[in-house]
Amino acid sequence: MTIRVGLCGTGTVGTGCIDIIQKHHDDFLSRYGIDLQLTRICSRSSEVAEAHGLGSLFTSDYREVVSADDVDLLIELFGGTGIAKDVITEALQNGKHVVTANKAVMASSGEEIAAFAHKNNLELGFGASVGGGIPIIGPLKHSLGANDITSIIGIVNGTTNYMLTRMEAGLSYDEALKEAQDNGFAEADPTADVDGFDAAAKIAILAAIGFNVKITIDQVHTEGIRRLSALDLSTAHDMGYAVKLLAITERSGEGVVARVHPAMIPLDHQLASVNGVYNAIYVTGDAVGEAMFFGEGAGAGPAASAVMGDVVDIARRLEKGAPALGGYTVPDNCPVVDISTLEMKYYLRFRVADRPGVLAKMATVFSEYGVSLQSVQQMGNKQRDDVNLVFITHSANEGKINDAIDEILSLDIVTGGAPSVIRVVD
Amino acid sequence: MTIRVGLCGTGTVGTGCIDIIQKHHDDFLSRYGIDLQLTRICSRSSEVAEAHGLGSLFTSDYREVVSADDVDLLIELFGGTGIAKDVITEALQNGKHVVTANKAVMASSGEEIAAFAHKNNLELGFGASVGGGIPIIGPLKHSLGANDITSIIGIVNGTTNYMLTRMEAGLSYDEALKEAQDNGFAEADPTADVDGFDAAAKIAILAAIGFNVKITIDQVHTEGIRRLSALDLSTAHDMGYAVKLLAITERSGEGVVARVHPAMIPLDHQLASVNGVYNAIYVTGDAVGEAMFFGEGAGAGPAASAVMGDVVDIARRLEKGAPALGGYTVPDNCPVVDISTLEMKYYLRFRVADRPGVLAKMATVFSEYGVSLQSVQQMGNKQRDDVNLVFITHSANEGKINDAIDEILSLDIVTGGAPSVIRVVD
Repeated sequence: MTIRVGLCGTGTVGTGCIDIIQKHHDDFLSRYGIDLQLTRICSRSSEVAEAHGLGSLFTSDYREVVSADDVDLLIELFGGTGIAKDVITEALQNGKHVVTANKAVMASSGEEIAAFAHKNNLELGFGASVGGGIPIIGPLKHSLGANDITSIIGIVNGTTNYMLTRMEAGLSYDEALKEAQDNGFAEADPTADVDGFDAAAKIAILAAIGFNVKITIDQVHTEGIRRLSALDLSTAHDMGYAVKLLAITERSGEGVVARVHPAMIPLDHQLASVNGVYNAIYVTGDAVGEAMFFGEGAGAGPAASAVMGDVVDIARRLEKGAPALGGYTVPDNCPVVDISTLEMKYYLRFRVADRPGVLAKMATVFSEYGVSLQSVQQMGNKQRDDVNLVFITHSANEGKINDAIDEILSLDIVTGGAPSVIRVVD
Repeated sequence: MTIRVGLCGTGTVGTGCIDIIQKHHDDFLSRYGIDLQLTRICSRSSEVAEAHGLGSLFTSDYREVVSADDVDLLIELFGGTGIAKDVITEALQNGKHVVTANKAVMASSGEEIAAFAHKNNLELGFGASVGGGIPIIGPLKHSLGANDITSIIGIVNGTTNYMLTRMEAGLSYDEALKEAQDNGFAEADPTADVDGFDAAAKIAILAAIGFNVKITIDQVHTEGIRRLSALDLSTAHDMGYAVKLLAITERSGEGVVARVHPAMIPLDHQLASVNGVYNAIYVTGDAVGEAMFFGEGAGAGPAASAVMGDVVDIARRLEKGAPALGGYTVPDNCPVVDISTLEMKYYLRFRVADRPGVLAKMATVFSEYGVSLQSVQQMGNKQRDDVNLVFITHSANEGKINDAIDEILSLDIVTGGAPSVIRVVD
């Protein structure tokens, strides 16, 4: 069966998709009976299409692709929240199946897009929106489909994981960022990565699929890594922890919580050894127990693997004449609740005046807010007249922690401004 | 849509399946519109059925289940190579869809069973046959379906991985085996695990799915862990390696090779930190690069998660009226070739007489067979008049290695019999 594919976007991932279609066309035909044909290529420049001998398929107007009679399936790789959503929705309105790698669109409008596709018996693939080439959306929807998922913890942003790996080796935040930029792992404007927004979009998608609930990126509590220092990472390491930017979603009696923030995890946790630009997603379910999915979270090959995995999978179902399976299933009437409902352990590093009575004052404030302390120690080098004091609390409510911090900051003992705060995941 | 399920086998996994069906019936109904109903339960004893309030469904005769009008889908959990294959084939002949966890049957007759199911538009699920609850068959068939897989390396036997983890901590082989048996991780007769046959069945299935070729368990070169000692594990660790029982399949120009044997892998390889009864499968593909799947490889919950994941997935397709997707696709006319075609590095530990000239004699033999040495060192404690000599070779052909070993054994210098041989995977 011939499946005609329109491609929107010819960046690294789009180029990777063209490469796979050209290299493996005959494999798909012999294995699955699928004759995959590129019929339209849309981009700002015709360079990539021409380099692949496909200049005749080129158009710079996406409307030609979404309305073309000779397109059965559209691949959306423009990315971002600009015209990408229009491309996806117009393609669906015109009866095309859609595969997208667009986490921004899926994390904000995924459920409505999936519902429209489902209603019109169209397929919607978005496996590439999370974790690059790592198969995670498919396993959550299928192999793990008999589980009640209880939590998903991901290292889903390669840029920040690379930076934290380098900071653990002693680099400062600025040095690590520059190195990441020099190596092509970070953008010139690193905001989406270092402030956690990229990870937030991904955990919103994972929560929706894993928990069968409606959740969007604006419901994800999001903190980045800008305030972490190499000192925090080495201190954590000495205490037996790695520091990672974790994207976490959990389901409890009250509802679903999704959050992105730096976290300390024990060095013997499987996620602690996920270094550099690698990604990993750690899933806990009531039957499966614990399962982890690890691999390259970005790059042309891995992302194209995920996009084309969806394309081939959809093509196989079309070849069989199978009705669309639908994307999201969100019947579970489960509220999304705020992070303030959680109780966690905290690492708090304050830079304070080095004089008698300071620790006693701080401990008194914590005690007043009902925050009990597991340990406190002085870390790093003494500079002039102040020192670093590192507190590890027992499980405490985030609101109480913040109240205690505010009161401590109002005392005349803190010299270094707001403390470094890292949640501890045991 | 009501899907009527007949269950054959009520051991731990079967019990886990009954638990999932009872616990999640309403979830499956609300999420997918599937009304999953157990209609027959076959086992030697009615105990489990009765304990779940399902005594009226019990039969001790599998023929009643495979021929029952009120069974749409049969779950085969008898295991082994006895009547299990009859149960599967007779159920398919009677038009029932089948889900099985039976690695022995799938590794010997999987392709013929899948072909029969496919021809008759019946579904065949066998995700639980490899890796317990770890989703791996599904991802290989779907999310990674656009890749040419180049290699699959698995730690797929929890018993031996537990034993090796304990031996690395200093226990002898016999102590580790006894501890595994005491903890319920090893059978009274541990042959299938410690001699590598369980892993061989699993890698045959992974090779068939990953490479789209026909391969059966008898084509897997299989060695177990009986000849490993704690000394080998500590020596390897000092050299920067972990020792694991690896199941490996690779595709090269000449064909597919599948093998199970102890192997040294660098301590910083993601597989090296997979300890205890955990399993992991490391996949390399031309687009995805490297991806690893990690989780609990055995136990009632994980295995039932995989079985019921297949059941729910098939039920969803039936609910949509979708034709069967088929199990294996084996069009690739690629030969299965022998391990002797491979070149690998080897760790060889001989116990030899402690006298001048011994090393020179051995080095001369290696040199005569074209085996070049990367390192040689004396390890462990000297006992009476002999010592342990550990050689690491450069890449060499297995046949040449064996010839060199035979000749060394014929000299009057080896006091400890056949050497300990571990292949090195870099």
